[in-house]
Amino acid sequence: MNDSQHIVSSYDRDLEGVQALIIKMGGLVETAILDCAKALEMRDEELADKVRKGDKAIDAMMEQINEETAFVIARRAPAASDLRVVLSVMKMSNNLERIGDYAKNIAKRAGVLLQMTPIEGSSGAVRRMAREVELMLKDALDSYIQRDPELAQVVINRDKEVDQMYNALFREFLTFMMEDPRNITACMHLHFIAKNIERMGDHVTALAEQVIYVSTGKYPEEERPKADSTPYEVHGDPMANND
Amino acid sequence: MNDSQHIVSSYDRDLEGVQALIIKMGGLVETAILDCAKALEMRDEELADKVRKGDKAIDAMMEQINEETAFVIARRAPAASDLRVVLSVMKMSNNLERIGDYAKNIAKRAGVLLQMTPIEGSSGAVRRMAREVELMLKDALDSYIQRDPELAQVVINRDKEVDQMYNALFREFLTFMMEDPRNITACMHLHFIAKNIERMGDHVTALAEQVIYVSTGKYPEEERPKADSTPYEVHGDPMANND
Repeated sequence: MNDSQHIVSSYDRDLEGVQALIIKMGGLVETAILDCAKALEMRDEELADKVRKGDKAIDAMMEQINEETAFVIARRAPAASDLRVVLSVMKMSNNLERIGDYAKNIAKRAGVLLQMTPIEGSSGAVRRMAREVELMLKDALDSYIQRDPELAQVVINRDKEVDQMYNALFREFLTFMMEDPRNITACMHLHFIAKNIERMGDHVTALAEQVIYVSTGKYPEEERPKADSTPYEVHGDPMANND
Repeated sequence: MNDSQHIVSSYDRDLEGVQALIIKMGGLVETAILDCAKALEMRDEELADKVRKGDKAIDAMMEQINEETAFVIARRAPAASDLRVVLSVMKMSNNLERIGDYAKNIAKRAGVLLQMTPIEGSSGAVRRMAREVELMLKDALDSYIQRDPELAQVVINRDKEVDQMYNALFREFLTFMMEDPRNITACMHLHFIAKNIERMGDHVTALAEQVIYVSTGKYPEEERPKADSTPYEVHGDPMANND
């Protein structure tokens, strides 16, 4: 057992309650991801409303994790390298909170889109993308529970598929808008939704990177693969993966 | 002097170094806001590149603030209510970091837009909006230095002007896209840029709310004013102020 593992194990005992909260928070966020996309596809206003209101519980859990983590710091007065391990828990809760925010915003836009003519087929594609991100998050949380850096790396690699899905949707929305200007407003909302799901994937990736850090004491050395890093690419959003 | 002021003063001494960092970080973020908008308007690729690269320094300062704040917690082992004051410093650095991210993303999109035909007049409007957000941030940081909750409240109220500017731009971009489909791609990028500046305003508002909390021990009681909270509004983005 190397030094970093020793530190992790030692902090595990103190952070047990906080870690249970992270997993619980992750479960709420997984549900929010699936529900916001389902509300969009099924044009289900009630479900969209449930996601919007449910975000408060996710925010409250982040606050609780922040405070409990701070208590752990106060009790243990850890040195710099140990502090980073504890701070990574706060970072993970921050990533989860932001994914929750995106789900809330998607649910709001789903409500707005209910007032417009549906764009054929697009909400199904959006839902598949959301489903992929939810599965990534599920595996990232499992990799955290099992302290499994290999699984975390698999999650990181899968983010490129989400980016590819986003790029395909970006092209599709551009086409719809050019074909018929009456589609422009709905497509702009759908594009924001797709972009928000792509950002969720980035936060799952960031979370998986923290798992690797917590498990091995090192951040992943390689940059995560980019679906396409050509800045002036013609066929997709040149900003995919960048914001 | 009431209890909350006493707590704040006591922590001020311990947090002096961290507070100096927050102000320094705020200065870097102000420059990034101005520079990314200037790079867009002037079609200045070199300046855009400077903003992109400069974001690393902002991220590093947030890391440093997180670690130093954690040291303060470790040294003082504060109780729950005091912890919240210390955690608000971490929140402010997090808000600044996210504003820096938006500036970086705007700079990237400015680089992409350089390859396209300019949309008449729009980048000037975007720059005015960025200037307004930068002035808000400047005042928010001043309100923090002076522990001035009234000034912080003025900043919060001004965010509705940024939302109005965003709404006006949203309408303008829709019009440009409907007039000529060749404008669609450029307008989608400009729309993202405007949205990112609007989000910067939300983070400045969140920062100003922390100033009120740190200065008075209470969060502002009233919800911040919304430029337009009608969810199905016709003439602006119904999601303005929501994500």
